[in-house]
Amino acid sequence: MHKEVTIYDIAEKLSISASTVSRALNANSLVSKKTQQKIIAMATSMGYRSNTFAANLRMQRSNTIGLIVPRLNSYFMSEVISGIESVTNDAGYNLIISQSMENVDKEISNLKTMFNNRVDGLLVSVAAGSNGLTGFDIFRDRKIPVLFFDRAPHGLTVPSVTIDNENAAFLITQHLIEMGAKNIFHITGHQSVSVYKERTSGFKRALLAAGLPFNENQLIVTDLSEKAGIAAAKLIAELKGDGVFAANDSCAATCMNELKLQGFKIPQDVKFAGFNNDLISRNIDPALTTINYPGFEMGKVIAAKLLDHLSHKSDLHSSPLITMKSELVIRASSNYKP
Amino acid sequence: MHKEVTIYDIAEKLSISASTVSRALNANSLVSKKTQQKIIAMATSMGYRSNTFAANLRMQRSNTIGLIVPRLNSYFMSEVISGIESVTNDAGYNLIISQSMENVDKEISNLKTMFNNRVDGLLVSVAAGSNGLTGFDIFRDRKIPVLFFDRAPHGLTVPSVTIDNENAAFLITQHLIEMGAKNIFHITGHQSVSVYKERTSGFKRALLAAGLPFNENQLIVTDLSEKAGIAAAKLIAELKGDGVFAANDSCAATCMNELKLQGFKIPQDVKFAGFNNDLISRNIDPALTTINYPGFEMGKVIAAKLLDHLSHKSDLHSSPLITMKSELVIRASSNYKP
Repeated sequence: MHKEVTIYDIAEKLSISASTVSRALNANSLVSKKTQQKIIAMATSMGYRSNTFAANLRMQRSNTIGLIVPRLNSYFMSEVISGIESVTNDAGYNLIISQSMENVDKEISNLKTMFNNRVDGLLVSVAAGSNGLTGFDIFRDRKIPVLFFDRAPHGLTVPSVTIDNENAAFLITQHLIEMGAKNIFHITGHQSVSVYKERTSGFKRALLAAGLPFNENQLIVTDLSEKAGIAAAKLIAELKGDGVFAANDSCAATCMNELKLQGFKIPQDVKFAGFNNDLISRNIDPALTTINYPGFEMGKVIAAKLLDHLSHKSDLHSSPLITMKSELVIRASSNYKP
Repeated sequence: MHKEVTIYDIAEKLSISASTVSRALNANSLVSKKTQQKIIAMATSMGYRSNTFAANLRMQRSNTIGLIVPRLNSYFMSEVISGIESVTNDAGYNLIISQSMENVDKEISNLKTMFNNRVDGLLVSVAAGSNGLTGFDIFRDRKIPVLFFDRAPHGLTVPSVTIDNENAAFLITQHLIEMGAKNIFHITGHQSVSVYKERTSGFKRALLAAGLPFNENQLIVTDLSEKAGIAAAKLIAELKGDGVFAANDSCAATCMNELKLQGFKIPQDVKFAGFNNDLISRNIDPALTTINYPGFEMGKVIAAKLLDHLSHKSDLHSSPLITMKSELVIRASSNYKP
């Protein structure tokens, strides 16, 4: 395997000391401009890795932003990433991304990789079960800014950009009730994930506010996959549900289509609502009532906040908790009153 | 800003020479085991960055795989990434991802970032207009393996894993013709992208084989977005199209729904086909005929090939061009014979 070029190799080639090479590459003024140029030229021609090079090391900047997300397989997350890149590209930053796969150990491993890759700042949506602390200390210690988004760690006052999930869930459940649903099921994800827990709270609060009873079996905890939606449909048919609020659109879509296959009329027999305003919500029949979750906007906001912090325009910690607006989008899947 | 810890700082703390520190961190046998341990302990406590540390530097391994893709906003790509991670996680590798946004300059910038982050190997699906050479020389020079997938550079014999796009497009167009379509439109992407160019060829070959005329206006070149599908629907209605083959499912879905809104019956009036077997293809009404594109499998294959190369089990270059199977999935959007 090709051997990594070190400052000792460069020193040997030029018959000078390694410390002079190091100083030159770090733009130390003890080395003359001429010698520095000679050393940089040799380092470049020998393929010495540029991340240890003068300007960046001196400035402690890699011009790289790290992004850690639970999974990349959602329309929402791809919108967030597009929003981030629309800001970081213009500012000359590179974005590197990794997924934690909802696994806390993998999140810690991702954090190490990002740290070793010398990211200037980090954007994180945490994995299920993450406390937002373990693995993050290396960033805190070096004052490398970390901004959480969408899924922020529970109970910590750390810089974060989220939506009011509890209220959005309350509004969409209230809407299903207004349309006549009385036995509503909520298909949700793991309750250690803040956004799902909060949506569950909002769902329950809306039932309570309308004087409707709540039974634990109305809460269907799944991995929110396509298959989970189909499985939930069978349960909902058995238990004579007349309303479904799913915590994402794809799961709502597969559940609704399965009930349609079983002969249920939507929205007459069962009223449906999802969450995210994904592409799929606008293209199924009937179109799905949902919460418009501003992924692209959120991406722009978090990237801009992080870059402003890095350029000392504003401090992330001065107003750490930012809540963005979401909105109820009513479509044909729920819009029926007997 | 926090100053980066250098070997000189460690040397000063321990009152030894910087070259001894460097040798110790590189596990050079000139330094006694005891001294090495003392130096590593000090380096760790001072927060010296671990990517320059002993084992990895000596082995030239970062245990990181880089992935560069045009865009992350497709079901296909998220499936590929899941497949890759299912292999790299088990092998103890981290995956870092960046998108080129279909921009050749951004691709080159991503390549530099990946190189400076010392990836052990690289998986790439190229941007529109990329020649697969510019920017890649730094990897070739250092013998860091690069494996292309899905979109391989045109006309180069470089390690790649793809499907036979030409034949898949031929088969799906032939099917639309068999179902009675005579005036078929193909909604496609930028023709500098290999996969779209190949699908266009297959589309044309199927018309030719059936003795159907081809007019340039049957080719609708777009960005394959949701909006492009809606715009294409208007054109297709005007030109009395009776068949549509779109190069992805989301564009096919929005086009089909727009024609439905205009009163066309699917598949009686217009037969539809997409590409990718995305979630959306199974959940629209009628369900969409498509090509099942094995994203998860492709991800597993490319990750395994790259790791096998890195562990010297097999050489990427010994059988560089791998073609995976795809299959025609016939659903209600096309399955109609008058």
